[in-house]
Amino acid sequence: MPGNSFGQVFRLTTWGESHGPAVGCTVDGCPAGLPISEEEIQRELDRRRVGQSKVSSQRQEADRVQILSGVFEGRTTGTPISMVVYNTDAKPGHYESIKDLYRPGHADYTWDAKYGFRDWRGGGRSSARETIGRVAGGAIARKLLAGIGVHIVAYTLQLEELRAQRFDEEEIERNIMRCPDPQVAALMVERVDQARRALDSLGGIVEVRARGVPPGLGEPVFDKLQADIGKAMFSIPAIKGVEFGEGFEVARMRGSQHNDPFVRREDGSIGTQSNHHGGILGGISTGEEIVVRLAAKPPASIARPQTTVDREGNPATIEVHGRHDPTVLPRLVPIAEAMLALVLADHWLRQRLARV
Amino acid sequence: MPGNSFGQVFRLTTWGESHGPAVGCTVDGCPAGLPISEEEIQRELDRRRVGQSKVSSQRQEADRVQILSGVFEGRTTGTPISMVVYNTDAKPGHYESIKDLYRPGHADYTWDAKYGFRDWRGGGRSSARETIGRVAGGAIARKLLAGIGVHIVAYTLQLEELRAQRFDEEEIERNIMRCPDPQVAALMVERVDQARRALDSLGGIVEVRARGVPPGLGEPVFDKLQADIGKAMFSIPAIKGVEFGEGFEVARMRGSQHNDPFVRREDGSIGTQSNHHGGILGGISTGEEIVVRLAAKPPASIARPQTTVDREGNPATIEVHGRHDPTVLPRLVPIAEAMLALVLADHWLRQRLARV
Amino acid sequence: MPGNSFGQVFRLTTWGESHGPAVGCTVDGCPAGLPISEEEIQRELDRRRVGQSKVSSQRQEADRVQILSGVFEGRTTGTPISMVVYNTDAKPGHYESIKDLYRPGHADYTWDAKYGFRDWRGGGRSSARETIGRVAGGAIARKLLAGIGVHIVAYTLQLEELRAQRFDEEEIERNIMRCPDPQVAALMVERVDQARRALDSLGGIVEVRARGVPPGLGEPVFDKLQADIGKAMFSIPAIKGVEFGEGFEVARMRGSQHNDPFVRREDGSIGTQSNHHGGILGGISTGEEIVVRLAAKPPASIARPQTTVDREGNPATIEVHGRHDPTVLPRLVPIAEAMLALVLADHWLRQRLARV
Amino acid sequence: MPGNSFGQVFRLTTWGESHGPAVGCTVDGCPAGLPISEEEIQRELDRRRVGQSKVSSQRQEADRVQILSGVFEGRTTGTPISMVVYNTDAKPGHYESIKDLYRPGHADYTWDAKYGFRDWRGGGRSSARETIGRVAGGAIARKLLAGIGVHIVAYTLQLEELRAQRFDEEEIERNIMRCPDPQVAALMVERVDQARRALDSLGGIVEVRARGVPPGLGEPVFDKLQADIGKAMFSIPAIKGVEFGEGFEVARMRGSQHNDPFVRREDGSIGTQSNHHGGILGGISTGEEIVVRLAAKPPASIARPQTTVDREGNPATIEVHGRHDPTVLPRLVPIAEAMLALVLADHWLRQRLARV
Repeated sequence: MPGNSFGQVFRLTTWGESHGPAVGCTVDGCPAGLPISEEEIQRELDRRRVGQSKVSSQRQEADRVQILSGVFEGRTTGTPISMVVYNTDAKPGHYESIKDLYRPGHADYTWDAKYGFRDWRGGGRSSARETIGRVAGGAIARKLLAGIGVHIVAYTLQLEELRAQRFDEEEIERNIMRCPDPQVAALMVERVDQARRALDSLGGIVEVRARGVPPGLGEPVFDKLQADIGKAMFSIPAIKGVEFGEGFEVARMRGSQHNDPFVRREDGSIGTQSNHHGGILGGISTGEEIVVRLAAKPPASIARPQTTVDREGNPATIEVHGRHDPTVLPRLVPIAEAMLALVLADHWLRQRLARV
Repeated sequence: MPGNSFGQVFRLTTWGESHGPAVGCTVDGCPAGLPISEEEIQRELDRRRVGQSKVSSQRQEADRVQILSGVFEGRTTGTPISMVVYNTDAKPGHYESIKDLYRPGHADYTWDAKYGFRDWRGGGRSSARETIGRVAGGAIARKLLAGIGVHIVAYTLQLEELRAQRFDEEEIERNIMRCPDPQVAALMVERVDQARRALDSLGGIVEVRARGVPPGLGEPVFDKLQADIGKAMFSIPAIKGVEFGEGFEVARMRGSQHNDPFVRREDGSIGTQSNHHGGILGGISTGEEIVVRLAAKPPASIARPQTTVDREGNPATIEVHGRHDPTVLPRLVPIAEAMLALVLADHWLRQRLARV
Repeated sequence: MPGNSFGQVFRLTTWGESHGPAVGCTVDGCPAGLPISEEEIQRELDRRRVGQSKVSSQRQEADRVQILSGVFEGRTTGTPISMVVYNTDAKPGHYESIKDLYRPGHADYTWDAKYGFRDWRGGGRSSARETIGRVAGGAIARKLLAGIGVHIVAYTLQLEELRAQRFDEEEIERNIMRCPDPQVAALMVERVDQARRALDSLGGIVEVRARGVPPGLGEPVFDKLQADIGKAMFSIPAIKGVEFGEGFEVARMRGSQHNDPFVRREDGSIGTQSNHHGGILGGISTGEEIVVRLAAKPPASIARPQTTVDREGNPATIEVHGRHDPTVLPRLVPIAEAMLALVLADHWLRQRLARV
Repeated sequence: MPGNSFGQVFRLTTWGESHGPAVGCTVDGCPAGLPISEEEIQRELDRRRVGQSKVSSQRQEADRVQILSGVFEGRTTGTPISMVVYNTDAKPGHYESIKDLYRPGHADYTWDAKYGFRDWRGGGRSSARETIGRVAGGAIARKLLAGIGVHIVAYTLQLEELRAQRFDEEEIERNIMRCPDPQVAALMVERVDQARRALDSLGGIVEVRARGVPPGLGEPVFDKLQADIGKAMFSIPAIKGVEFGEGFEVARMRGSQHNDPFVRREDGSIGTQSNHHGGILGGISTGEEIVVRLAAKPPASIARPQTTVDREGNPATIEVHGRHDPTVLPRLVPIAEAMLALVLADHWLRQRLARV
């Protein structure tokens, strides 16, 4: 099965290259009857868009989405929803000079190793521009989930050692780092400025949360909820680590500390007193908040000279100019939300199959 | 698509409950002509088996595997390979007294939330006994990969704060913790003893490596190699974090530090000078060693009293007796290797489809 | 994706060779809570079994099924249902003398062409014995469908030019041809006797019907109900033609004749006055009876001398002795029912995903 | 898994409604390095296009295809190939008057039964316009197969009782019926004229053949080559019967007649003396010509008054005006070829996975 589709029953297929005519996606398996508009999808794409602030790439793309099928009189019809975003500010010339060099940290070499050649214009399909289809598809998943009270939010948790110390959801979209702690956000912006001047880039951590997820989502044993979320997150460019709940901290915990006691909530439902487990037990949602963290490597495109080789293996020096992000974190936020929405929508639908 | 299958072209389906008649699996998509024997599979199962040492559960199971199909005159035929392991030491009576209580940290509640009821005997299919099918299937994947020079090894890297300080692959199978540092291994065993006496359990980290992986494996954009490995690892019971290469440390790194310069190796092939990336760039293998780490939570089954609720939400106290592991790390080792083998075999075969 | 699984959400995987240790299957995706017993599955297997009458093979197999997982206290649990039937009357020696010859009309040559070699014992997995897994899995699908009032029945419609002239469902299981017209059934038995004495075999047509199928099943555009039924039927050994409703007769019909007028039924629901369409329009069930016909070629195994070649292409003469069916029709009946049940169960579940 | 994708490794997803903004498709899994141009795809689309002759619908659509991704410098890159055809002559107003009536023989009622409502403009996605994506995707499959010497051709075999008596492949594209027998073609055109004047429509049979298919394609046991071809053909609108080789005639044949003796061909390869089997044995290609026939019902849209009901079940009379085909046969030809090409390309790639 080819690798450009995601999800089993709510299924997204994305396509498109950074400097080709367009990028887009098809959502197959969205149930009929969901109200959806281009505006709702555009809103998410606008959050992902480049050129929004001094911390992101300066490529200018309007990223206007058009729905070409699957929606009739404002509602999904049950047929595939095809969406397209035409590329308007493609400048492949930027890349011509380095088309035979392997940019360190990039996918140039591995794509050549895989396919024998590659579309070298802006990284082709290995570009972050590919994530447009994810965000467009995720917007539909999100709408579906909103109908059952699921709320998804992501934010920049950490940049280098700078870590948000407080969580105010309202603050997230108010600063260009999308950090829920405005004081730390300001320090982060400063740090990004400093790194850009140093022709360097920065890693960090994004946290994603989902509230209101009904208990019971996730399929034993391979399609556990954390397995599918893990896959979703690791499919995002630049992600090198994913963790749930206490994450890697569990290594230092004892069962007596980590186990969350079950309790009866005020509304009579069953929950847990604490949430070390991060919303998933045995691969199935508990109804508690799902908490995921993603470690993003520093963007590979940096303007300082680096040593590398060309396609024949000859040593070379490369400087990667172009319009790049010194940090991916703020733009990662809507992408991570979209991927979580896609997994949850898929599993929410799959749960309809669980009982006679 | 139901959740008990893994892999796209080399496809494993597992089945079976902890205290049902048997557990087993079917491997579909193994190419014809691979020499394989029950002994080779048994060897891996024996490594996974319980009752091997004082750091693991005392359930006594021979775990004898039988191949029921798909092998003829010592070679795979291209048809499904069905394997079965009958359960012999099932003691469901152990669980009768707690069948209406939700064990903290376990899947009891979530399975009920999903299916409306559950096979409560030893956790049913949420038991670690389910991983027998993974290890049996993984043994075949491993054999396939051995033929192209891929070598996979996992080991206990860390237990609480005790972390291996040196790596001697020979040492791994010589100590019951499967730790490549014998001094640290001894400390770990002591720590496990102490935790068991305290009726508690311990978390830790397992590291898995694969050498000799050809460059080019992994499918853009959703079935990236790290995405499928990530899913594989998060599908293993108890795993709360997965990271590649520098992992969560990338948060603190700069592009200039993290980018691995490309170089020409002595044999003329292309590689990288360092391996911060952990063997995968842009979702595709580089040919460098693949390095993955898994954070395993402390086993949820502990004998000390815990507060919980029953199916109706009434408060209760529970003590989980039975034959449990105070740490899953040594037994996690062959399981993690199996899962990595399954992903690599699948992607090695998929790579045959990449070019005209 | 390997080829031994069928269905998207109610998913059957079969395994096993004719003269290997066992044959069996796994059903993944059966909803939790379905009451099912080994007896119900055995009943269907007994109908498929060989050695039942003079019109079928004389191999003696009890075909006793065991459920190894997925059922707890008489109900499905939502986990995979593994079933096994051990082979007891395997006589691979029968085949040793012809293992290097290609039996005309058989899969010997094509399996060699595909895999480079084959399990030659009784056709290996190309044997009709493979269908045991289908019938076992189909029995569960059938039980699921019975709960919503779907009734499936198949029967021998035609043997050579002998065609049932009347339909009495009660008669089907009363004669060894499984023909709903007892007079024609008697003629058919005579014809089979005559063919066996002539060391020859006979083709024919089986008809399958499903009543009570709710309208709305089937997925545009590739997984149309007739497409999945068509695939199901063409996956059965020996089937060379499949048709729905008027079938190939539509070639001679006009739109004004073939179109079935819609009417309101007495119960207020919508139906059609006639059923030329055979229960499916636009790939989706109408609620009218689904009517499918299968053309089965005469069994390829005949005892008279035939010309062929060996693996090297040398001319040879072959006589296929062994325990073969002069006609597959009566045994095809439960297999065709099983395959239709599998498709309908799958699509009935998939329909749960159609609307928000 | 949603129903708008076809193929396992060479995978086509189609989207679009008859009177929406556009129709299109994505091909995922096409190997990298295949030379392909818009012109090659356009050529096939032009053969499928309406308004070409007096025997087909008079809707005027240029059906200009654009490739939006996956092709770089004239070759496929291994990434998804997205293609779009904008609708230009959509006249949804034609359908407004009958939007609450169920057209006999159409999918109106079943789509409502499935989804609760439907895009009624020109049948929405149940329109034959949906097949544009199939033909565009099929053109790529065809190009892939041409590289290994596979030649696919379809033609009108029969219209009512008029059946081609000779086969001259050159003639097919020379007459508007696409019949390989020019004399019979002339009679067919006359018959279509007469039916149109009678406000009626006509059924018929299309035959599809593939030469040069290597032996070994097809996957036991459910993804047999005839099973996947059968599914492909039954997924085409209007198809009510599919048969291979002798097809339904096998019902009247004996094993001794039907079995094709194996022979050594002049080039040393193995083949069969006759081709009753139609190119597939045991679900796997033999290397002989693949022969498939499709029975197409008379188009449901006829202008004469018919009785039906509306959405509430009230009796009504309907006349289906619009721009319809009195026969689908000539336009079915390129669609059937495309579907066969898709199956063969998929299985040709899958065969790469068969052996170690």
